[in-house]
Amino acid sequence: MKDNIIAWLEEGTITVPSLLFTEYRNLNLNEAELVLLLNIMTFVEKGNDFPTPEELSSRMTISLSECSDMLRKLIQRGLLAIIDEYSQDGIRFEKYTIKPLWERLVTQFLTSTQNVHENQKKTDET
Amino acid sequence: MKDNIIAWLEEGTITVPSLLFTEYRNLNLNEAELVLLLNIMTFVEKGNDFPTPEELSSRMTISLSECSDMLRKLIQRGLLAIIDEYSQDGIRFEKYTIKPLWERLVTQFLTSTQNVHENQKKTDET
Amino acid sequence: MKDNIIAWLEEGTITVPSLLFTEYRNLNLNEAELVLLLNIMTFVEKGNDFPTPEELSSRMTISLSECSDMLRKLIQRGLLAIIDEYSQDGIRFEKYTIKPLWERLVTQFLTSTQNVHENQKKTDET
Amino acid sequence: MKDNIIAWLEEGTITVPSLLFTEYRNLNLNEAELVLLLNIMTFVEKGNDFPTPEELSSRMTISLSECSDMLRKLIQRGLLAIIDEYSQDGIRFEKYTIKPLWERLVTQFLTSTQNVHENQKKTDET
Repeated sequence: MKDNIIAWLEEGTITVPSLLFTEYRNLNLNEAELVLLLNIMTFVEKGNDFPTPEELSSRMTISLSECSDMLRKLIQRGLLAIIDEYSQDGIRFEKYTIKPLWERLVTQFLTSTQNVHENQKKTDET
Repeated sequence: MKDNIIAWLEEGTITVPSLLFTEYRNLNLNEAELVLLLNIMTFVEKGNDFPTPEELSSRMTISLSECSDMLRKLIQRGLLAIIDEYSQDGIRFEKYTIKPLWERLVTQFLTSTQNVHENQKKTDET
Repeated sequence: MKDNIIAWLEEGTITVPSLLFTEYRNLNLNEAELVLLLNIMTFVEKGNDFPTPEELSSRMTISLSECSDMLRKLIQRGLLAIIDEYSQDGIRFEKYTIKPLWERLVTQFLTSTQNVHENQKKTDET
Repeated sequence: MKDNIIAWLEEGTITVPSLLFTEYRNLNLNEAELVLLLNIMTFVEKGNDFPTPEELSSRMTISLSECSDMLRKLIQRGLLAIIDEYSQDGIRFEKYTIKPLWERLVTQFLTSTQNVHENQKKTDET
């Protein structure tokens, strides 16, 4: 009984800004792309920095080729990036970074915050 | 500058078990259904316990009628429920609960954990 | 077995910026004060917006009078605030807000970020 | 402006079970010990699996020797452990694990859940 709760706990949690769910549509992401990005975050969190399209598509309802396609387009559109890193013994490896997604989300957030302020100003002036 | 970070912080975060992303496909959920459930969690977290199909679909890439349809089917399939509550002054109101989703996820987790153990046992015995 | 995991899950989680643990000392908070603030967050998260000193001290290793004292000093020092709200039927009630803590933390973060940049500039210039 | 929010976001968050704050006293932890454990989690989350007493005490209000002492006692009392791991090139390194803390927390949770059930049963029988 105890072991099951421990095992559950060890699977861990994913914490994302609520704004990701409020704004993904405004970032021109659809639900499959959003979940693909969330799955990448889950793999990274567990220590797998560069999950393959096989690993990603196997837990999704999209096919392997749709998954590869989606990854390529997310990178092209600047919502996902692959960066090079070097291990302690100098071996180069690739990893995903979702920093571009956060940058777009922050830009979107700042734009909409500013719009709200400007609209309030206009209302106050009338 | 400071106010923007505060505003960002106040938007809050959503924390979900990583297993939701690993297992949603095994719960027969597709990506749009998963994101719909995540959006309900986000609304509930912000104090709106019963978001309308309009509120939900407006931030998604699905139409209003697709959203209503999806909500009805999630309830029929026992992955989402509506419960009645009473306010302090005795007024009845409805709210969503995603407890059925967690119950299914836990059942799925216990089943797969047990399968792993049984397979290990078989391997050990050979 | 399943019910225990569900019960565990329903107890929920608390998510705080890692910076709170890195910087609380620089905000002149000691460990007991930090945990008191974390306990207030936990109560608020569970729907109790104004836990009493009794409720707070009963789960801590400090006495009731120490707890009351600590709360008063945190408010005086501008790290915690009590705000008035009105229920739908116009009844006034009080609640804690830890917004002042986040404001101090953000200020501290921006100051230290700026210092790092200035030091880097100085190093670059030499 | 945008960069500051990104920098804030990159500092990350720490998510812990709410029960840790409700129950730490029942695990015979005081506030300084709890925060020490939370600080270890924060370091581990950031990729530093074995922070030194210097690193830990420098962000706390306790001295270096108090910190070393506290770490030793937490290990003796079975609330923290050091485990050996091997890097890909076979080099042994040590890391902290807070799994013992979660085990104690789960045991405490199961005990108190059971007590509640038994008390309810007694009440129902009268």
